[in-house]
Amino acid sequence: MIGPATYYRPEHRDALDARTRELIDRREAVLSPGYRLFYAHPIEFVRASGTKLYTRDGDEFLDVYNNVPSVGHAHPRVTAAIAEQSARLNTHTRYLSESLIEYAELLLGSFGAGLDTLTLVCTGSEANDLALRVAKHATGQRGAIVTENAYHGVTTEIAAISPSLGGVDSLADWVRTVRPPVGDGSAMVADVRSAIASLQAAGHGVAAFIVDTAFASDGFLAPSPATTAALADAHALVHAAGGLVIADEVQPGFGRLGRRAGEPGLWGYLHHTMTPDLVTIGKPMANGHPVAGLVARRDLMQSFGDHVRYFNTFAGTPVSIAAARATWDVLHDEQLPEHAAMIGDDLRGMLHELAARHDRLRDVRGSGLYLGVDIVDPATGEPDTRAAVALVGALRERRILISASGRDNASLKLRPPLPFSRSDAERFITEFDGALTDQG
Amino acid sequence: MIGPATYYRPEHRDALDARTRELIDRREAVLSPGYRLFYAHPIEFVRASGTKLYTRDGDEFLDVYNNVPSVGHAHPRVTAAIAEQSARLNTHTRYLSESLIEYAELLLGSFGAGLDTLTLVCTGSEANDLALRVAKHATGQRGAIVTENAYHGVTTEIAAISPSLGGVDSLADWVRTVRPPVGDGSAMVADVRSAIASLQAAGHGVAAFIVDTAFASDGFLAPSPATTAALADAHALVHAAGGLVIADEVQPGFGRLGRRAGEPGLWGYLHHTMTPDLVTIGKPMANGHPVAGLVARRDLMQSFGDHVRYFNTFAGTPVSIAAARATWDVLHDEQLPEHAAMIGDDLRGMLHELAARHDRLRDVRGSGLYLGVDIVDPATGEPDTRAAVALVGALRERRILISASGRDNASLKLRPPLPFSRSDAERFITEFDGALTDQG
Repeated sequence: MIGPATYYRPEHRDALDARTRELIDRREAVLSPGYRLFYAHPIEFVRASGTKLYTRDGDEFLDVYNNVPSVGHAHPRVTAAIAEQSARLNTHTRYLSESLIEYAELLLGSFGAGLDTLTLVCTGSEANDLALRVAKHATGQRGAIVTENAYHGVTTEIAAISPSLGGVDSLADWVRTVRPPVGDGSAMVADVRSAIASLQAAGHGVAAFIVDTAFASDGFLAPSPATTAALADAHALVHAAGGLVIADEVQPGFGRLGRRAGEPGLWGYLHHTMTPDLVTIGKPMANGHPVAGLVARRDLMQSFGDHVRYFNTFAGTPVSIAAARATWDVLHDEQLPEHAAMIGDDLRGMLHELAARHDRLRDVRGSGLYLGVDIVDPATGEPDTRAAVALVGALRERRILISASGRDNASLKLRPPLPFSRSDAERFITEFDGALTDQG
Repeated sequence: MIGPATYYRPEHRDALDARTRELIDRREAVLSPGYRLFYAHPIEFVRASGTKLYTRDGDEFLDVYNNVPSVGHAHPRVTAAIAEQSARLNTHTRYLSESLIEYAELLLGSFGAGLDTLTLVCTGSEANDLALRVAKHATGQRGAIVTENAYHGVTTEIAAISPSLGGVDSLADWVRTVRPPVGDGSAMVADVRSAIASLQAAGHGVAAFIVDTAFASDGFLAPSPATTAALADAHALVHAAGGLVIADEVQPGFGRLGRRAGEPGLWGYLHHTMTPDLVTIGKPMANGHPVAGLVARRDLMQSFGDHVRYFNTFAGTPVSIAAARATWDVLHDEQLPEHAAMIGDDLRGMLHELAARHDRLRDVRGSGLYLGVDIVDPATGEPDTRAAVALVGALRERRILISASGRDNASLKLRPPLPFSRSDAERFITEFDGALTDQG
C-alpha cells in the first residue's frame, strides 16, 4: 500500500495556494480524519476525458494511475447509457429486467466452465465479503488463507483478511498468510500446506484460499509456468482440506492484463490456468459506477440461497446494468484488452530501455497495463522507498499521475485507463526519464 | 421481513404469459438462486416517473412500496445532475473536489451538535458495517445490542446482528436482542439492562446499541414521550457500560417520517430526541444511485482514522455527490418532508376510516410516509399473515405496489416515494377497499 509520504500532510499546507488551502481546511472540517489526499500538493480536477484529467486552470494531467475508469474517463457511450437509463427507470432486482439478464448472460460467457452463476453487489469489498461468506457456508469451515501483503477490501470481515491494511496483527485468528508464488512457487505451496495444518490444528478448518490473480499488492507477478504449477498445487491442497479457491479479479479483471490472439481472455485466473470456485469482480466493471459482483459455481450459490437471505438494494439496478453493459460493449468494440497487451509490451520495452540508463530502475513486472517497476538504491540494489515516493511527487509536478506500491512501497504501480496510447506511453517515459535524471 | 408467499415460486410459472416465463427461465439460469422476484405474477417495468411505474404494455402501477426513489422515480433534476457530471468527471476522494465538501457541509448542518464528521460509503450495509467497526474500535468492546426483529444489512458482520434475516440462531455470540420500545417502553429498558449484564458476563462488553429509529422491521413505532424516555434510559445504560449508540437512519432518514413547522428535522433520532454517537444513512440519499454514509462524533473517527486504513473507491465520487446533492436540493425545494407529514396524516385518516368498515384492519402506526397497518383475523383479532400476503397479491393485480412486513409478516408496509399525492392516496385507498371487500 501507499505510504504516508505520497499523501498530503499538514506540514505541506503553507506551500499551497490560497484556494487549495481553503478547500483542504473545509474538507478537514467535515470529512473523517481517515480521508487522505494524494500528494504534498493535492490536485483539484474539474474534468477528464480518455487518459487525461484537467484542473480548473486547464492544466492537463496524464493518468497512469486510475484503473477504475478503465475504458477511459467520461467515455461518451458509458455516460450516454447512464443518462438515458437514469431518465427512464431505476429500480431493483425484485422486478423483471431484461437488461440485467442479457448482461449476466454476456458476462458469464467469458468465464470458465462451471462458473455459471452471478450475484451483483455494489463494491469489491461487498463481493469479497459475500464470497467468503458463501465459502464458509458451503464448507462449514472458517479458516482463510491469503498472500502476505494481500488487500481484499474494507468490510469488517474482509479487512480482517487484508494484511496490507494493518499487518499480520490486524488479521482475524482464523487467517493465515502465505508467500506469493515468486520464483519456482515452491515457497507458496509449502506455506499453503503449513497454513492448512495450522488452521486445522486450531479447529478452524479451511473455508477459502483467496488470491488476487495479479498479486498486485504482493509486487505484481505475471503468469508463468511456475505460478501456474504452484497455484495448481495450492488449489489441490486446499480442495483436499475441504476448502474453496476464490479468485479476486476486482483489480486484474476485465482485460487489464491484456489479451492476445489465442490467449484465454479477460480474467487473470485464466492466464494462470486456475479453476477457482468463486470469482469476485468490481472496480472497472462499470467504469466508475458502483457495480461489482460474485461469479460462482451454482451448487455453492444454491446451498447459500436456500439457507441465507441476501438482497442488495442498489445492486443490479437498471442504471448500474446500463453502465456495466456500455462499459462491456466499449471494452470489446474498442478491443481494449488486445490494446492493453500490445501497449503493455511497448511500455515494458520502454521501461527496460530506461532501466539501461537509470540504475535506480530494476525489475519490471506484470502483464498488460498492470505493471510494477522496482525503485532501488543504486549503491546497494535494495528497495528504496524514499526514492520511489520522491518520484511519485516529481511526476505529479510533471503532470503524470502514478503511485508507489508493494510491501516496501518501493515499486511504482502503472495501471492507466486501457485506451492509454503509444504517445501517452512516450509522454510518461519522457517525464519519468526527466524525473529520474533530476533525482540523480 | 417479507415471507415467501409475496414472491414468485416455480408453481406459479404455468399461469404466466410466454414472455414472463421466458424472462424468468433466462434469469434463473444466470442469477444466484438467492434472487427473488416479487409476486406470483412478476412484473417487468420499463419506465417510471414520480410515483408511477409502467410496464412494456403501458400499464401504470402506483408505487406505495419503493422508498429508494424518494424524491420520485426518474426525477429530472437528479437525472440531469447525474448525466452532466458523468460526462465531465468521475474520480475518487483522494483528489480535491469542492462539490463533495459543499455536500458534506450541507448534510452535516442537518444533524445535532457533535455529529460533525462524515464518511461516505456505497450502501447502507457498508455504513452499518463501518459504524459497528468504529464502535468496537472506540470502545475496545465487541458486544452489540439490537431489537428483536432488527434488519441492518448484509455484510458478514451486519447479517450477524440482523435477527430478521435468520432468527436469533443466525446471530453472532456477541449479539443480544431486546424488545422494541412498545407501550411504556419499560420492557425494552429492562431488556437492555439484561443484555448489558449478559454481554459483560460473557466477556464481550458493550460496543454498541443499534436502533432503526422507525423500528420498521419491529412493526413501526412512531415517536412518543414513552419511546423518548425509554430510549433515553437505554442510552444512559449503554453509555454507563462504555458502549455507544448507533441510530440506523438508512430507511427512516431524509424526511420520510415527515416534518412539521417547529419540528426537529430530517432524522428519526431527532423525533425521538435521541443523541446518538453515530448515525448511518443510505437508501434515499441519492434517489437510487449507490450512496450511503456514516455521520459520527469527530473524536470517534479521529481515533479510528489514526489506527485504521479505510478507503472506499466508489464512495463520494463526483457523480455520487452530484446525485446526492440534486436529491437533497429537490427534497428541500419541493418541501417533501413537510409534504410527507401532511399527506401521511391524510393517509392515516383514510386508513382509519377504512378500518371502521373492514374489521381486518387494525392498528395503523408510523410517521409521515412510513406506515404499517396490521391485518388480523376478524374472528380472533390475531395477526393474519395469509390475509396480509393475499392482499399484497390482490393489490398487485389492481396495479398497486405494496408489501407485507413485521415479525408475523402480517402488517402492510406503506412507504411510497415522497411526492405521493392526495390523489395517489385516494387511488390506493379505493383499491385497498376493493381488495378488502373481495377478500371478505
